[in-house]
Amino acid sequence: MKLPADPAENLATLIRCPSVTPAEGGALTALAAMLKPLGFSVERPIFSESGTADIENLYARLSGNGPHLMFAGHTDVVPAGDDSAWTLPPFSGEIRNGEMYGRGAVDMKGGIACFVAALARHIEKHGNPKGSVSLLITGDEEGPAINGTVKLLDWAASRGEGWDAAIVGEPTNPDALGDMIKIGRRGSLSGSVTVHGRQGHVAYPHLADNPVRGLMTLVDALIEPPFDAGTADFQPSNLEITSIDVGNPATNVIPAKATAIFNIRFNDAWTAETVQAEIHNRMDAASRRKKYRKGSREPIEYELVWRDGPSHVFLTRDEKLIETLSGSVKAITGRQPSLSTSGGTSDARFIKDFCPVVEFGLVGKTMHMVDERVAVADLETLTQIYSRFIEDWFG
Amino acid sequence: MKLPADPAENLATLIRCPSVTPAEGGALTALAAMLKPLGFSVERPIFSESGTADIENLYARLSGNGPHLMFAGHTDVVPAGDDSAWTLPPFSGEIRNGEMYGRGAVDMKGGIACFVAALARHIEKHGNPKGSVSLLITGDEEGPAINGTVKLLDWAASRGEGWDAAIVGEPTNPDALGDMIKIGRRGSLSGSVTVHGRQGHVAYPHLADNPVRGLMTLVDALIEPPFDAGTADFQPSNLEITSIDVGNPATNVIPAKATAIFNIRFNDAWTAETVQAEIHNRMDAASRRKKYRKGSREPIEYELVWRDGPSHVFLTRDEKLIETLSGSVKAITGRQPSLSTSGGTSDARFIKDFCPVVEFGLVGKTMHMVDERVAVADLETLTQIYSRFIEDWFG
Repeated sequence: MKLPADPAENLATLIRCPSVTPAEGGALTALAAMLKPLGFSVERPIFSESGTADIENLYARLSGNGPHLMFAGHTDVVPAGDDSAWTLPPFSGEIRNGEMYGRGAVDMKGGIACFVAALARHIEKHGNPKGSVSLLITGDEEGPAINGTVKLLDWAASRGEGWDAAIVGEPTNPDALGDMIKIGRRGSLSGSVTVHGRQGHVAYPHLADNPVRGLMTLVDALIEPPFDAGTADFQPSNLEITSIDVGNPATNVIPAKATAIFNIRFNDAWTAETVQAEIHNRMDAASRRKKYRKGSREPIEYELVWRDGPSHVFLTRDEKLIETLSGSVKAITGRQPSLSTSGGTSDARFIKDFCPVVEFGLVGKTMHMVDERVAVADLETLTQIYSRFIEDWFG
Repeated sequence: MKLPADPAENLATLIRCPSVTPAEGGALTALAAMLKPLGFSVERPIFSESGTADIENLYARLSGNGPHLMFAGHTDVVPAGDDSAWTLPPFSGEIRNGEMYGRGAVDMKGGIACFVAALARHIEKHGNPKGSVSLLITGDEEGPAINGTVKLLDWAASRGEGWDAAIVGEPTNPDALGDMIKIGRRGSLSGSVTVHGRQGHVAYPHLADNPVRGLMTLVDALIEPPFDAGTADFQPSNLEITSIDVGNPATNVIPAKATAIFNIRFNDAWTAETVQAEIHNRMDAASRRKKYRKGSREPIEYELVWRDGPSHVFLTRDEKLIETLSGSVKAITGRQPSLSTSGGTSDARFIKDFCPVVEFGLVGKTMHMVDERVAVADLETLTQIYSRFIEDWFG
């Protein structure tokens, strides 16, 4: 039987499945068909929750005597947008000038295609790895992520599954294959601050209290000074104001309240709790400032509300995992990948509660864009990196 | 025939007409019934415009040989709000503890009631004034003001009417009758400034350009420094940010644009044109500032749009009008009224294009509020002031 050792063929098969979240689109079925000849047992748990779409997921395991490696990822993709804007159709997997086009080419059907090809080559050449390999693949990473990785991890763990290390195959390289392995991520925390003023006529500002003046003062204190200058392993924490809203249509009326919404990505100098305390302190201090509010005797009356749960910062310190992967990248590409904690959150933040986890995949430049595409040469290179990693990590 | 010489009786009659804009509510009919026994010819032009309610107005003239005095005002009132919150019903004109309650009691059926009573007393005592008196009364001052004073002035002028001076009977006194005559108003100008950034993921702020940071910088420059410290006749110009809107619901997304809306009330150190030029200059200079945008190489990309037409600043310098009115206030109340240009715009800004205009009426404290009311003693005092003014101005 022919094993799925060609990453380009694997990827074309996956791209042709229109698996826009929450649709399975045939992608998990196609993946299962590749894994079965390799000896994997495949399960397809479906998770549901009221108010969300049912989501199909996949957990495949090849059991062996030795450590247990997880490869994690997702087959769902974001919408293609305007099909007619694409150079080649977004669900075609066609190649032009050495690049394969398609939604999910790099984010992240490509990573899955390469890992499967790497396994196939390993098995062809060396037989089964000296341990267990699992693929933990969700169909709900680009969507609400409620019926995906979190539930899949709990489901597998409750059946006795345990892992020694995990690779997430997200596109981690900014410009070229070999640039970057991600070994952690900043935490994330969102909140809103609302200033309550006193409504009134713009011609009589002394009888009113314009909350925009107060909000400007508080927002200034949210942005400045910077929270830190970065740490050994992390870039500086950064806060962005994502919205300010007053909604007052009348230009002769001073509004009653004004709200700013913010998100902070914080590094390992902080915990969610210390960030919250720092922001509370900044708001308290700023509420007594008179900038924009000359003559005001009262502190700014504000309300600070935290949104959703925070994502906690994490850093993976597993030397075997990190050094084996770095070594594989160096051996195949000749380049030393940086060990980064930059960028947004990913499903690695859930996996880190079960085993050490790193992320390494293709070049992310075209992800989520029209004409998402991957160099066929990169597919071959990533397959060789994953092959080398499997060989060295189990060896 | 009994003349309408009792201001409280006149006012109760007018309050009982529920003339909430745009309804005439019987108020102009009641006023016409008071004016006809005094010898006035009364006309009731109705103005319309597509998209607005038809509005009834009133122009009444008592012709005589000599100068022509206009008394201007409105019989329409703002809604009563929650009727049950009133101590006495809002359209009852009932009296408790020496105060008459009702919507429009001070803004400004009360001023009309007193002026009519003053005329009645003058005619009873001295016969017709030595000149002409007109009442120019609209039913569209509290509404969109499209089918009101502006059209009524043009309508009258096109019929050959011309005036030598005008009094607007709006409530000008902050605390007590005799506090304040208004002899001009600041100009008013509204605009919006929109900053165009680059949308992106909050985890990659260097790939995006948060327009909120740019907007904060521009809004800072709108507010500070103050435009001036006031002039001999006017309080300082003042700018208020009336709204800021981004409308971004996603806390992981840096938005593409952010808009602030502002209104400035400017004094006679400025014209609408010089204010616009100053704001353009401030925005241009601020667009190159790096505050909140460290590392940004490009100036803030913004769009400044002026809203509606500006209201121009004006100051009435007619000595006879101002001194006769001040003298009347002093003679009756014993108090020297301040000559003010504070507060919001009024229909005086339209009348000033036809003749010198000042404003003097009741105490404004309860205007637009639940339990709007006027001391019956104040109605008597204002009637005496208007009587004295008619006597002296024509004499």
